[in-house]
Amino acid sequence: MNRQWLYAKQPQGKIAPDTFQWTETAIPAPREGEALVRTRMLSLDPANRAWMMGKTYRDALEPGQVMSGFAIGEVVESKSGGLKAGDIVEGDWGWQDYAAMPARRLTKRTIKAPFELLIGPLSITGLTAYFGLLNIGQPKPGDTVLVSAAAGAVGTMAGQIAKLAGCRVIGTAGGQDKCDWLVRDLGFDAAVDYKAGGVYRALKAVCPNGIDVYFDNTGGPVLDAALSLMNLRGRIVCCGNVSQYDVEKPAPGPVAVPGLVVTKRLRLEGFVVMDFFDQRAEAEAKLARWVEEGKIKAIVDIVDGLDKAPQALIGLFEGRNKGKMAIRI
Amino acid sequence: MNRQWLYAKQPQGKIAPDTFQWTETAIPAPREGEALVRTRMLSLDPANRAWMMGKTYRDALEPGQVMSGFAIGEVVESKSGGLKAGDIVEGDWGWQDYAAMPARRLTKRTIKAPFELLIGPLSITGLTAYFGLLNIGQPKPGDTVLVSAAAGAVGTMAGQIAKLAGCRVIGTAGGQDKCDWLVRDLGFDAAVDYKAGGVYRALKAVCPNGIDVYFDNTGGPVLDAALSLMNLRGRIVCCGNVSQYDVEKPAPGPVAVPGLVVTKRLRLEGFVVMDFFDQRAEAEAKLARWVEEGKIKAIVDIVDGLDKAPQALIGLFEGRNKGKMAIRI
Repeated sequence: MNRQWLYAKQPQGKIAPDTFQWTETAIPAPREGEALVRTRMLSLDPANRAWMMGKTYRDALEPGQVMSGFAIGEVVESKSGGLKAGDIVEGDWGWQDYAAMPARRLTKRTIKAPFELLIGPLSITGLTAYFGLLNIGQPKPGDTVLVSAAAGAVGTMAGQIAKLAGCRVIGTAGGQDKCDWLVRDLGFDAAVDYKAGGVYRALKAVCPNGIDVYFDNTGGPVLDAALSLMNLRGRIVCCGNVSQYDVEKPAPGPVAVPGLVVTKRLRLEGFVVMDFFDQRAEAEAKLARWVEEGKIKAIVDIVDGLDKAPQALIGLFEGRNKGKMAIRI
Repeated sequence: MNRQWLYAKQPQGKIAPDTFQWTETAIPAPREGEALVRTRMLSLDPANRAWMMGKTYRDALEPGQVMSGFAIGEVVESKSGGLKAGDIVEGDWGWQDYAAMPARRLTKRTIKAPFELLIGPLSITGLTAYFGLLNIGQPKPGDTVLVSAAAGAVGTMAGQIAKLAGCRVIGTAGGQDKCDWLVRDLGFDAAVDYKAGGVYRALKAVCPNGIDVYFDNTGGPVLDAALSLMNLRGRIVCCGNVSQYDVEKPAPGPVAVPGLVVTKRLRLEGFVVMDFFDQRAEAEAKLARWVEEGKIKAIVDIVDGLDKAPQALIGLFEGRNKGKMAIRI
């Protein structure tokens, strides 16, 4: 039996249990050039929600499809020369136990690490933090780096990589608990609870020398505040807009664009992690070494059971997770 | 006698005649290290208005000061080793017949050209267009380039430089007259009247392949429309925000920031022309050659008489000028 979650209907406002529909079907047989994979872990990401809103860097989700999602699994049977049973692969085959996937849409993982690390810290989320911060943000030692959604999958990695780069690192997160944890456990220099209000004043107090690099996972009020605090020639890494994914009506855009962008000579630049996959092997090896040496803590938040996926994704938008959220199957 | 316009008071909403105050005073004597300059032309720029709103890349204007403004003139008397009577210099000495200026705040012009060219096309505005388009926008032959405020001082130059770079060039301007003129006289491939409404649809119709580089002089609705039409990895040159300078209440920011910036991997980058002054000599020589060879038309809009400066600046914000607006004294 192949258990699946379908994307049932476009949410109006927040996603809810009825955004998804459970179904069971036969395990597919791989065709020529395909491999049958068994899912071991499903990655839950803010992007899952963004795909429901329209075309992004990929086509929009259509009701009736298997819910899309990045996953890691094991090849059960292969009809492709490049893959064999037992290989560990990743790809976007969505919320189901099994999938018959064209081999070209699967990436073989060769690095030895537990699935908990392969699903995020040593894959998409770790690489997103790595390339976004280093290639786009270009921090210099001594720079002040702000990371929003700092307790999240990408944020925990970006903040720690910025510390390794010799920067003073500030995070924003929802709730004082998470903020305390960022400072105490992950080595952030300070953290600001964006839910407490007054985010501009709070950030100003902990960024006495302004902000040189802002790693923006959220857009919204933290982006507004950051724009006002950016230093001359500051870089804003546009990684995500999670404050606006799960809402009915988008907030107004940042008033400081383009005014302060001109006068402060700021650079805002968007990216998608795949843009840098020519440098993936080197980045992955570095991340793996940092994690192994304890220089970076890989924070994962694992939920057991495919049946829990909708509630877990809803929880992600309620800010219930710390670090990378994934479903173990 | 030294005739001067003072900056009298901060405008609420639009600038008006009473933003300025006429005064007459004695011609100053230069001190050690200074030169006495006689103004020949005054540059009128949207930035003049921006300086009234607060600190930008320079300190805010303070009521009671001589109105600031970029100017070109002749050295009458020098107490600095680097300058002598008869030298042509430029600098920001503001709206007055004479000024005693520290020599380090004056730039000697060595290129031979009429004041009409030295005040804009072969100086700040020409260089702004040149560095913004080429260094920040990085257009490739065949790219579609959109220029807002295309009939203005920077826009006329940016559009023509983009044509020389082998691009398809679209402009926005206020009124059908200016639009027709851009296509007929300046070689733009198409132009859209932003005052006619429906700017997104109108731009979409003339940009069937999307936009690769947007040279943004205005912010506001044209920026919103451009963001929606940008191609993957498009570049937005943030040069100015003229739609928001002469208003009481700033418009909301662009809703597409940061959402579309991420998914389309856009880069928005601000600059100020002085950032590139290490490359000034080469750029100036190129601009002068293009103008001399007729490859670029230097469009200037000259008003005679220092007394006309306030009305001329008000006219600039009403869109009355074509090309570079300057006061001849």
